[in-house]
Amino acid sequence: MGFLREYFQRGSDDPEPLTVTAVRRVRFEEVDMLRIVWHGHYVSYLDDGRVAFGDRFPTVSYDRLRREMVAAPIVQLHLDYHSPLVFDEEMHIETTLHWADSLRLNFTYRITGGQGKLAVKGYTVQLMTDLEGRTILIPPDWVQAFRDQWRNGDLR
Amino acid sequence: MGFLREYFQRGSDDPEPLTVTAVRRVRFEEVDMLRIVWHGHYVSYLDDGRVAFGDRFPTVSYDRLRREMVAAPIVQLHLDYHSPLVFDEEMHIETTLHWADSLRLNFTYRITGGQGKLAVKGYTVQLMTDLEGRTILIPPDWVQAFRDQWRNGDLR
Amino acid sequence: MGFLREYFQRGSDDPEPLTVTAVRRVRFEEVDMLRIVWHGHYVSYLDDGRVAFGDRFPTVSYDRLRREMVAAPIVQLHLDYHSPLVFDEEMHIETTLHWADSLRLNFTYRITGGQGKLAVKGYTVQLMTDLEGRTILIPPDWVQAFRDQWRNGDLR
Amino acid sequence: MGFLREYFQRGSDDPEPLTVTAVRRVRFEEVDMLRIVWHGHYVSYLDDGRVAFGDRFPTVSYDRLRREMVAAPIVQLHLDYHSPLVFDEEMHIETTLHWADSLRLNFTYRITGGQGKLAVKGYTVQLMTDLEGRTILIPPDWVQAFRDQWRNGDLR
Repeated sequence: MGFLREYFQRGSDDPEPLTVTAVRRVRFEEVDMLRIVWHGHYVSYLDDGRVAFGDRFPTVSYDRLRREMVAAPIVQLHLDYHSPLVFDEEMHIETTLHWADSLRLNFTYRITGGQGKLAVKGYTVQLMTDLEGRTILIPPDWVQAFRDQWRNGDLR
Repeated sequence: MGFLREYFQRGSDDPEPLTVTAVRRVRFEEVDMLRIVWHGHYVSYLDDGRVAFGDRFPTVSYDRLRREMVAAPIVQLHLDYHSPLVFDEEMHIETTLHWADSLRLNFTYRITGGQGKLAVKGYTVQLMTDLEGRTILIPPDWVQAFRDQWRNGDLR
Repeated sequence: MGFLREYFQRGSDDPEPLTVTAVRRVRFEEVDMLRIVWHGHYVSYLDDGRVAFGDRFPTVSYDRLRREMVAAPIVQLHLDYHSPLVFDEEMHIETTLHWADSLRLNFTYRITGGQGKLAVKGYTVQLMTDLEGRTILIPPDWVQAFRDQWRNGDLR
Repeated sequence: MGFLREYFQRGSDDPEPLTVTAVRRVRFEEVDMLRIVWHGHYVSYLDDGRVAFGDRFPTVSYDRLRREMVAAPIVQLHLDYHSPLVFDEEMHIETTLHWADSLRLNFTYRITGGQGKLAVKGYTVQLMTDLEGRTILIPPDWVQAFRDQWRNGDLR
């Protein structure tokens, strides 16, 4: 359980990870009586990161998944807290999708506050399932197209 | 906009209001940096009040409504804040359903903290709709049965 | 308790209300199992409206109040729900400060969704207190300056 | 990143972990449009677990820490999701404190729903700091007393 480790190893043949950065401010109600963001609210910030990622790469957006009748439940969540954000602080949420051979979404996150100070690092693992919760093992065409583009270096 | 007013008038022929009291404690994440409960969280406490009410009078529980394919959206919400609750404080949520001639749920709430000090008073108004959001005007049988019992003094 | 009423009456000598509009999107976690925004989350949207108002008129920002050792607790909150917002919908939050002869902040809100459809109207009333919760009755200089500018038509 | 692993290893000389179980129900607002608890709300359930633990062993309660001017910020959080909880489901939150040679709080959690089905497992790591955020390395007397009792088997 070391801190600061890299969460996912990149295989030698894997295409480069894809990264998107979102910006938002800490809300009043997210700050606790110690005057810092309550640790649970960072899970929302990861969500904001994935929404921004889906805006840039619509194949993995909530909207596309819903239209394709696919769910992407989170099966693992991990957060390492480095320094707390405070009320009204502007943060950058860097969200990175890592290549996986199996059909899962492996995201890492890096949240920085003012002056670029590291606040939180973490990762989530999502499976893809149908609406009854059965894991999808074979990539549907629209996912395969995304993976092909990614491998061919056509996504930036 | 006076404070402390009575929210719903009782008509001379109306049966007595029904009241149920729930007890809960303030959670850490509900307290803001002024060390008091953030004003928005009281809306959750009203929900807790209605859940306790539905446990006691299952006709108006979420579960019964869902099984009957009926929704009860809140169309009006009002809160008067008297004194703030603090972390870990135990509160009593007194939830009262008032008779209405039309098919709506008129609840008032009275939340008190330690030593019975008044914290918040408020009310909500809910309509009953089908799952497409169309207002139901004629009480279904199971609602009418509840209303008859209430009028006849068979609910306590 | 009529719907759609005007919440605050403007006196004949009162300066025009001040309005600021904020834009945001509905978050995933704010949507309930009926696929609409849970009614309690609109309280957060009002907060977003007031933050945008404070960005435009810093005298009433959280930050200024904090530096002046003044709190502005909400003592009354009212919401009228007209139509629900759904996941990822973009909303406009129109926040209006109304003149009051006494030292209180009377805000009204009008939240519209896609195509400008009215979602929610509401108001809040805030008192100004010191950090021990004692109501401030005489406007401090920095508040009086703001009120003078407003009355003279120097705020837009 | 295997699932179902044991999170903390018990050293051969370590006293037995301490476990407390809390019970609560899923709230309406915690359920998302897929009709399951949104993954971020489980962080609140861990908090409920720790509050129940502090009720049973007051040395590690929020209240005691606050009175001693000590904070216990979470520096690591991990959740493995096994099966989702649904609206109104009753859950058991089993919270276990593991012995650590250094001055940190290592908790694991096991949340089960109806029929004892495993919903979530996870852990948190907390450091102890003074109110300026400086890590405390030497146990204060009141902590040492707790550790001595624990080691001597006087805590149950």
